[in-house]
Amino acid sequence: MELTGPGGRRASLMRALREAIRSGRLAPGTRLPPYRTLSADLGIARNTVAEAYAELVAEGWLTARQGSGTRVAPRAAPARRGPASPVPSPPPARPAYNLLQGQPDASSFPRSSWLTSARRALTAAPTEAFGPGDPHGRPELREALAEYLARARGVRTDPASIVISSGFAHSLRLLVRVLRGPMAVEAYGLAFHRGILAAARMRTVPLAVDAEGARTGELAASGARSVLLTPAHQFPTGGPLGPERRAAVVDWARTTGGTVLEDDYDGEFRYDRQPVGALQGLDPERVVHLGSVSKSLSPAVRLGWMVLPGPLVAEVVAAKGEREATASALDQLTLADLITSGAYDRHVRRMRQRYRRRRDLLVAALAERAPHIDVSGVAAGLHAVLELPPGTEDAAVRAALARGLVLDGLAGYRHPDSTMPVQDGLVVGYGTPPEHAFSGALEALCRILPPAGGRRPDGP
Amino acid sequence: MELTGPGGRRASLMRALREAIRSGRLAPGTRLPPYRTLSADLGIARNTVAEAYAELVAEGWLTARQGSGTRVAPRAAPARRGPASPVPSPPPARPAYNLLQGQPDASSFPRSSWLTSARRALTAAPTEAFGPGDPHGRPELREALAEYLARARGVRTDPASIVISSGFAHSLRLLVRVLRGPMAVEAYGLAFHRGILAAARMRTVPLAVDAEGARTGELAASGARSVLLTPAHQFPTGGPLGPERRAAVVDWARTTGGTVLEDDYDGEFRYDRQPVGALQGLDPERVVHLGSVSKSLSPAVRLGWMVLPGPLVAEVVAAKGEREATASALDQLTLADLITSGAYDRHVRRMRQRYRRRRDLLVAALAERAPHIDVSGVAAGLHAVLELPPGTEDAAVRAALARGLVLDGLAGYRHPDSTMPVQDGLVVGYGTPPEHAFSGALEALCRILPPAGGRRPDGP
Repeated sequence: MELTGPGGRRASLMRALREAIRSGRLAPGTRLPPYRTLSADLGIARNTVAEAYAELVAEGWLTARQGSGTRVAPRAAPARRGPASPVPSPPPARPAYNLLQGQPDASSFPRSSWLTSARRALTAAPTEAFGPGDPHGRPELREALAEYLARARGVRTDPASIVISSGFAHSLRLLVRVLRGPMAVEAYGLAFHRGILAAARMRTVPLAVDAEGARTGELAASGARSVLLTPAHQFPTGGPLGPERRAAVVDWARTTGGTVLEDDYDGEFRYDRQPVGALQGLDPERVVHLGSVSKSLSPAVRLGWMVLPGPLVAEVVAAKGEREATASALDQLTLADLITSGAYDRHVRRMRQRYRRRRDLLVAALAERAPHIDVSGVAAGLHAVLELPPGTEDAAVRAALARGLVLDGLAGYRHPDSTMPVQDGLVVGYGTPPEHAFSGALEALCRILPPAGGRRPDGP
Repeated sequence: MELTGPGGRRASLMRALREAIRSGRLAPGTRLPPYRTLSADLGIARNTVAEAYAELVAEGWLTARQGSGTRVAPRAAPARRGPASPVPSPPPARPAYNLLQGQPDASSFPRSSWLTSARRALTAAPTEAFGPGDPHGRPELREALAEYLARARGVRTDPASIVISSGFAHSLRLLVRVLRGPMAVEAYGLAFHRGILAAARMRTVPLAVDAEGARTGELAASGARSVLLTPAHQFPTGGPLGPERRAAVVDWARTTGGTVLEDDYDGEFRYDRQPVGALQGLDPERVVHLGSVSKSLSPAVRLGWMVLPGPLVAEVVAAKGEREATASALDQLTLADLITSGAYDRHVRRMRQRYRRRRDLLVAALAERAPHIDVSGVAAGLHAVLELPPGTEDAAVRAALARGLVLDGLAGYRHPDSTMPVQDGLVVGYGTPPEHAFSGALEALCRILPPAGGRRPDGP
């Protein structure tokens, strides 16, 4: 394997692996060598191999499963290419039921409200709105967000401290350029985010999580200079960050000068009581509050925001560049109008009711069909975790796939260096399916759960 | 200066320089040390310093002028920050006249047509359009572009070979991850693009340009594995790539297996004859054709496209990631409808007439007021170059600024390693000003031009 070309050894290794996968030399499911083996074979640092694997996981070429190593992803089917005409890879077989987390019901996008706001916003916009764009983002949107976030999430800020992005991933890529590492991340979290941090050479240290969220008391001993948390609803295990944990992380940040990143990915969706206020409200000078419309509205819109401590604003804006390079000014103007007109609130309220109903259906179905399975994280959000007996997770995910049901096990969310006891579980995203498909998805789910004491579940 | 933190020495140096500028320790206009000096002082590679400077130029913190070194940009005024509340930097004083290149007239954005298309497109869109998004980009847009580009630019492709991006910079950042270097770039070109290449560790070699565009016959000796060109209208000096030069670059690519990037930034705006067909039409398997709506519609929309040789499609899509992460699906759907409905063609035609009229006014004004000044590049595009006597460029740009007129000299466009003779000149963007301000801008321009033989121009 020749490691040449721009970007250094990591980029070269990634290029070589992508090519090997594309050409079929590495078939889907093939297990890749462990870091140390490839590192020794190629004479490159273990860290370089680990970073390359992590980025390729983030890009979807590989999957990483605890105890199962890093493998070529099932969907990375190589394309057969003739010399002249490109034949695209066949799309992956469409599953019958999709309970993957992270996506709101696409059929619920409020097209009519969006178009009404677009007409109003674009008609009223000043000429300069159609020019190169300010990397802070449209002032109309920053003003609307400052007011909305204060009201809906208890965020304390002003429009000048908000910077618009094209979503959480973009926000994280910007922040990682201005923050000091290492960064503590929750021991269970999105591999895609770890991939972003790895690609930016930000070393991460895992922070254990439990029913009260991340164990923030362990930050002081971790050596971390920054921490990425999901305080409203630990992703994916589900616990809201308990009050003592919130106080502890703010104390840590004040004592060490560290920065806290609050990923408020589904903060508007709390079902059983008033939403937990944003952690940022405890200390706006030490906490960056991150949000987007990807869960509340649609991932198609590509808009996010960072509420920043004052001193970080100029650095993040500088990292963005001289002009707005990714976030559509037209979408920004439209979203601002959607918020100020109240239509966004109405949509979120409607979706909260819809997802609460689905949560109720999920909990009821499990209570009836699989009462031995504990469910966590159901008080909020668009997903829940079903705890499984040790060693049953892989089989459950495969059984689901065989029935046309896609969903994730917990394994892929686990930080590779975590020392927490392994927890087997299924991550059930109940936001994703359209209304008509939800009960079918629940049925398929119930059928593949391991039975209590060994018998397969029978059901009506 | 302490170089620590994530991202290596280059990122650390950049962080330290930004901080020094923000805090005022490096005042606007201050000349930075030459590469070799800082390199020796800090014990880091000269290349690292050069890359850091180039990126900070791209980000707008520094300016680079031939013969004048790298200086702190005038607009990088530090903010005075109190401990608790952020006070944003005061905006730069708004110039009376803006003849900076690169921006279409923002007042000409077709709001009504855009809204009509948005309503039609979003009403008709399938549910999945509001889901996570395919990194190839919306099929509706790729189909519309394949047909439009064939008709308007002579591009030979199919929808499967087009990948949507959030603009040229995004396209370039993706391509630089999959192409081999070094990359030849035109000796005069956008510093911002060189910054993108530098940030990606892509070594660039300058390719001389003249009235026939880039001297592509010199590619073979350059050692380059890829080349970035502006064949329709050399940016900024203005010559279209001559027929023998086009044949030469395609021969080079076929012989060496190199890849040609065709930046077709203003290909629809040709005034005196039929547009020159895209270079891509000569060899779709060796040329990547890049375009965007930034000049033809607005930089606020953030949409671009890459027409790729077959084997590159999967690599670029993989570099983009598992899902569409930056380009608004809503804008994609709307643009597709704008194109298929004919409204985009009508808009471009209208703008072509408007910019031709401005071109005519510019040429006439100069012919009358400064007949000794040669103008190049006026057959196409949204800018022209006024050639100045040696050594007069800096004074002309300063004199313009003193009269409230912003425009660029040629110096900032020059590749730092170019060995071409230095050409003094002004880059006049006649697309930028709104209609009512254009004649005032022309007047200010004429007043600051160096006179023939030393006398200041007097005029009506």
